[in-house]
Amino acid sequence: SVNPDIASERQTPSFSVEKLTARLDGGVEQTRMRRAVVEAIESDPEFSRESQYFQSQNERYEAAVRKAVHLQKKMHEMGWTENGPEYKYIYRALSGDVAFLLHRIFVRSISMLGSDEQIAKWIPLASQYQLIGSYAQTELGHGTYLQGLETTAVFDSSTQEFILNTPKISAMKWWPGDMGRSATHTVAFAQLYIHGKCYGIHPFIVQIRSLQDHSLCPGITAGDIGPKMNFEHADNGYLMLQNVRIPRENMLSKFCEVQPDGTYVRRGSQKINYFTMTTVRISLLSDEVLAPLMKACTIAIRYSVVRRQSKLKPGEQEAKILDYQTQQEKLLPQLAAAYAFHFINDYLQELFNRAYREIQRKNFDTLPELHAFSSGFKALVTQHCTSGVEICLRACGGHGYSLLSGLPSLYTKILASCIYEGENTILLLQTARFLIKCFMAASAGQPVPPSVTYLAAVKPSKCPAKNKLDFLSPDIYTEAYQHSAVRLISSTAAKLQDLVQSGVKKYDAWNRCTVQLVQAAKAHCHYITVKNFAETVERLETKAGIQKIMKHLCDLFALHGIFSNAGVFLHDGYISGAQMDMVTASYLDLLAVIRKDAVPLVDAFDFTDKSLNSALGSYDGQVYQRLYEWAQKSPTNTQMNPAYERYLKPLLHNTLSKL
Amino acid sequence: SVNPDIASERQTPSFSVEKLTARLDGGVEQTRMRRAVVEAIESDPEFSRESQYFQSQNERYEAAVRKAVHLQKKMHEMGWTENGPEYKYIYRALSGDVAFLLHRIFVRSISMLGSDEQIAKWIPLASQYQLIGSYAQTELGHGTYLQGLETTAVFDSSTQEFILNTPKISAMKWWPGDMGRSATHTVAFAQLYIHGKCYGIHPFIVQIRSLQDHSLCPGITAGDIGPKMNFEHADNGYLMLQNVRIPRENMLSKFCEVQPDGTYVRRGSQKINYFTMTTVRISLLSDEVLAPLMKACTIAIRYSVVRRQSKLKPGEQEAKILDYQTQQEKLLPQLAAAYAFHFINDYLQELFNRAYREIQRKNFDTLPELHAFSSGFKALVTQHCTSGVEICLRACGGHGYSLLSGLPSLYTKILASCIYEGENTILLLQTARFLIKCFMAASAGQPVPPSVTYLAAVKPSKCPAKNKLDFLSPDIYTEAYQHSAVRLISSTAAKLQDLVQSGVKKYDAWNRCTVQLVQAAKAHCHYITVKNFAETVERLETKAGIQKIMKHLCDLFALHGIFSNAGVFLHDGYISGAQMDMVTASYLDLLAVIRKDAVPLVDAFDFTDKSLNSALGSYDGQVYQRLYEWAQKSPTNTQMNPAYERYLKPLLHNTLSKL
Repeated sequence: SVNPDIASERQTPSFSVEKLTARLDGGVEQTRMRRAVVEAIESDPEFSRESQYFQSQNERYEAAVRKAVHLQKKMHEMGWTENGPEYKYIYRALSGDVAFLLHRIFVRSISMLGSDEQIAKWIPLASQYQLIGSYAQTELGHGTYLQGLETTAVFDSSTQEFILNTPKISAMKWWPGDMGRSATHTVAFAQLYIHGKCYGIHPFIVQIRSLQDHSLCPGITAGDIGPKMNFEHADNGYLMLQNVRIPRENMLSKFCEVQPDGTYVRRGSQKINYFTMTTVRISLLSDEVLAPLMKACTIAIRYSVVRRQSKLKPGEQEAKILDYQTQQEKLLPQLAAAYAFHFINDYLQELFNRAYREIQRKNFDTLPELHAFSSGFKALVTQHCTSGVEICLRACGGHGYSLLSGLPSLYTKILASCIYEGENTILLLQTARFLIKCFMAASAGQPVPPSVTYLAAVKPSKCPAKNKLDFLSPDIYTEAYQHSAVRLISSTAAKLQDLVQSGVKKYDAWNRCTVQLVQAAKAHCHYITVKNFAETVERLETKAGIQKIMKHLCDLFALHGIFSNAGVFLHDGYISGAQMDMVTASYLDLLAVIRKDAVPLVDAFDFTDKSLNSALGSYDGQVYQRLYEWAQKSPTNTQMNPAYERYLKPLLHNTLSKL
Repeated sequence: SVNPDIASERQTPSFSVEKLTARLDGGVEQTRMRRAVVEAIESDPEFSRESQYFQSQNERYEAAVRKAVHLQKKMHEMGWTENGPEYKYIYRALSGDVAFLLHRIFVRSISMLGSDEQIAKWIPLASQYQLIGSYAQTELGHGTYLQGLETTAVFDSSTQEFILNTPKISAMKWWPGDMGRSATHTVAFAQLYIHGKCYGIHPFIVQIRSLQDHSLCPGITAGDIGPKMNFEHADNGYLMLQNVRIPRENMLSKFCEVQPDGTYVRRGSQKINYFTMTTVRISLLSDEVLAPLMKACTIAIRYSVVRRQSKLKPGEQEAKILDYQTQQEKLLPQLAAAYAFHFINDYLQELFNRAYREIQRKNFDTLPELHAFSSGFKALVTQHCTSGVEICLRACGGHGYSLLSGLPSLYTKILASCIYEGENTILLLQTARFLIKCFMAASAGQPVPPSVTYLAAVKPSKCPAKNKLDFLSPDIYTEAYQHSAVRLISSTAAKLQDLVQSGVKKYDAWNRCTVQLVQAAKAHCHYITVKNFAETVERLETKAGIQKIMKHLCDLFALHGIFSNAGVFLHDGYISGAQMDMVTASYLDLLAVIRKDAVPLVDAFDFTDKSLNSALGSYDGQVYQRLYEWAQKSPTNTQMNPAYERYLKPLLHNTLSKL
């Protein structure tokens, strides 16, 4: 039975939920296929995540391996392939709770970096899971800065081998997934030395465990790095190499080769390879970053129409907490952000697909812009979505804090996205470097890539809005974002120049501007996101109420950004204090408007109860019953009280006679 | 051996670390006593937290009970008492990782709410742990709004009993600590009914488990609420009551009593009791909120001088990450906030001690102000410190994400402080209600409590600062904070009045202003915090460099607040855009100044390695070695690979022949 407090929220949506779902999926056919995959996965008990919140790291790991093995069977059964259209839905339906994800990177890196012979040898074995691979790049003391890696691979021409070593503890490989307990092989990155000369970082295939009994190979020290904030299912590992000898053929040699006599040969262009690395940052957004935010919004908003707390109107029953302005102000901007980032993700995917076609024609001109895009948006979206999930968690009070709400694990997992595939601050500084360069070029009248031509355009100095309704005009707010981005970029460029001209060394000047450079890069990406949302709304079909509600969300996203970064817009008076009051008024008005459709807007994300795995967020809104049922299954209830016999019983022993 | 990268940071501190530690402790004698307690606790293996990050919820609970029982013995041995000066250090040294904390609330509530006979009967048993108590207030569907509680206690005059019931699932008691698996008794809050009339919420002593064999008593359903984001050691529980009969004498009756014939008698004033509830919010700040932030700063800052990443200056070795402006901008404001909140906590403690003396003389005049203080500062400090810990965690990159860094558990635990003892948004709105009332009174020329007299004073309309150095003047920035607080409070009061005058119902008008009211309450508390920090610095001894470095931190705290809430200060032009640039310049300059003393400033917090329990934060800075050693002790390494025999072996079985 559906809780009447949530049922009433669905009675008069202003738009067609089903049509919006299809729009999010990219079409009716995609929705159908997604649902079929989800149904196939969720109806299979082998993939159940039911006991997830009760399991130890060992149990989670075991389950993830079991699922990975079962998945192979399932895919075969269902006729699904890794390159098929279903694949993205499969991964999403598993919520990533499966092993051998780094094995896939192992396969991809050999495909991309290996010679034809290497591909022919390794890929079939790996594809059949007849060996388990990993990808060992990061070291205990070295992350983003690849040149700093310390692992060495010395070529020994007498035996035609490379000798791999971990010269000190900070050089130990650390973090690679699937390596702690599963992998038999890994692609390890090491500094190549030939005849005493260093040729920089290269990838080598290294066997680390016996195929016979899974024991560690000679010279190998490896294990699991222990408990993390999440990713209990993954055996992130460490690896130390002591005089490990591998044949010359094990250096991945598509782009460079060491010949038998030690001659180092470089060939071809690695540019397309860099492009692939860049796209990884974008490709992770959908499943690892957007889906968690959408789930968190679904859970928190459904809970907020079921949970009642205090009286809003004297004499009435306690109010749904979503009727409080403060609760709306916590949750609805996150909902708007989920849509905003969904659309920017679509935009980025398209951009990268287009670029890929260009690049295949050996036109690498767009690479710097693409790199700036992927870095900046990876940082912006992961940062916003992580905060968003945290806000959703906190907005559910005590029950949000229970693992059974599903929110803690969404949060602890999405948090990692701010760090992996490039730490966000470092990425934003890479975007900033691109922006500064483009700004300088634009100022000098030189041509710049399309996404930054706005840096050259002359801007009006004041926002023309006259009343609060003017701030519901996309032109008005998009212009405001553009203006702020230009101001932050240009003023930081000026500061940088001033410092250098006053004699400060360039690297030092850069460091002294980095706080502001980060702000500038964020402002740029935020602007593009708002602009893209507004343009997407323009193109939406007007029927079924979709365009109208998306327009409201776009307005909310934009005005929330102005409201909560007011200083950026007020700084040079582009928006006046009086105008900021109008922004605030329109922003708060919008909360009340969107609140009416809040439940249909999360229903449109179309998550099943199993995929949410939340006692608070189920479709039927039966929160309390479910919390109680789930709690009873906890090992703290199903197992004997471990403290009773030894500690509690002796304490309570004589009390009875005294009462 | 101490890592030279951290040793060099301690060579030339600008101040005496030992003197600052004594200042933080409140005197040399306190430092001595604290260290003696910490030493006694940490040298006792029974209190070890070494394996904490590897334990299941069941193991954590068992360890917490074991420690609680051992603690009684230890206290007796050491001559420590619950009211002795050592007690606060004991709890801190255990990092709260001990059972029976709610048992203490059980004891306190009987002492405060019980009659002399009740105290005489129950307190001795409870003090000796011959029964284990809990405190059952919150229900599945009811938190902050106590009138909404649904549990009933119906007086049956024929048997002289109360009959307790949980009428529906949302009325189930949920969250009480020590109740899930330990407690034999609880103080349960229920709606009292006599002859069909409801007299509101009252406290009742209810036995829930047998003293003989710990089985649940008749009519009792109870258990553990399952896994949470932290507090694995605590058995937060649920409780359902079905026609549970308790004697009339079990209603705690200091303030009201049901006589044998059902006559309800109320007596005395509960005001002092409300005062005690208010002080709880302040008393938790030191151990539950400030200590975790100080620990997080210690860990992150020590790690940031050991971790090297990328080159800052071409040709040199990789730079310490704390030398990057962006890293300084993440961590140093958190360090400044830790000091700011330490001093505001001192101020609040003193305020409440003074008030307590007044209240004992039956002068309750200060209660509204104290309530506003405790609500607002509980919210402000928990909010800031929680964000601060999260920033520290993220600033440590991948290693911060490992449980072994200690940061994840600091974060997941401090997060709860934003929710318990009053959800922060609700608390801020209570402060706001007080501020609005005072503002109205002040505007009408009526007297107001001392902390808000500033609301009546006329203010200059522009900040007088002429250059960036002016912003290092406490008068300048304190004035700016004061101005903003007044502006936010007065403008929200005006909006509220406008709405009511335009015919909006009062409760609706209030709801429509709550987003701004929250801002106003925060601004008020932020202003008081800055003002108090500046005044504290004034009073500090000038020798040993203490005053100078604290002045820098005070400036940083204040300017960071202006920099990151720029909109609030720019809104009405009190601070101009040009002045905001000066703020930014001074703020960034300060980062570089404080960076030099960053390690001594966290050393002054004087946490032992055991109390930090962090592979990243130890005094000697041996990060990588410790991460590696600790990881090896993880059950993922010490236990057999649970996936090998069943899943991995069959996969790898035939590979050998193919390679």
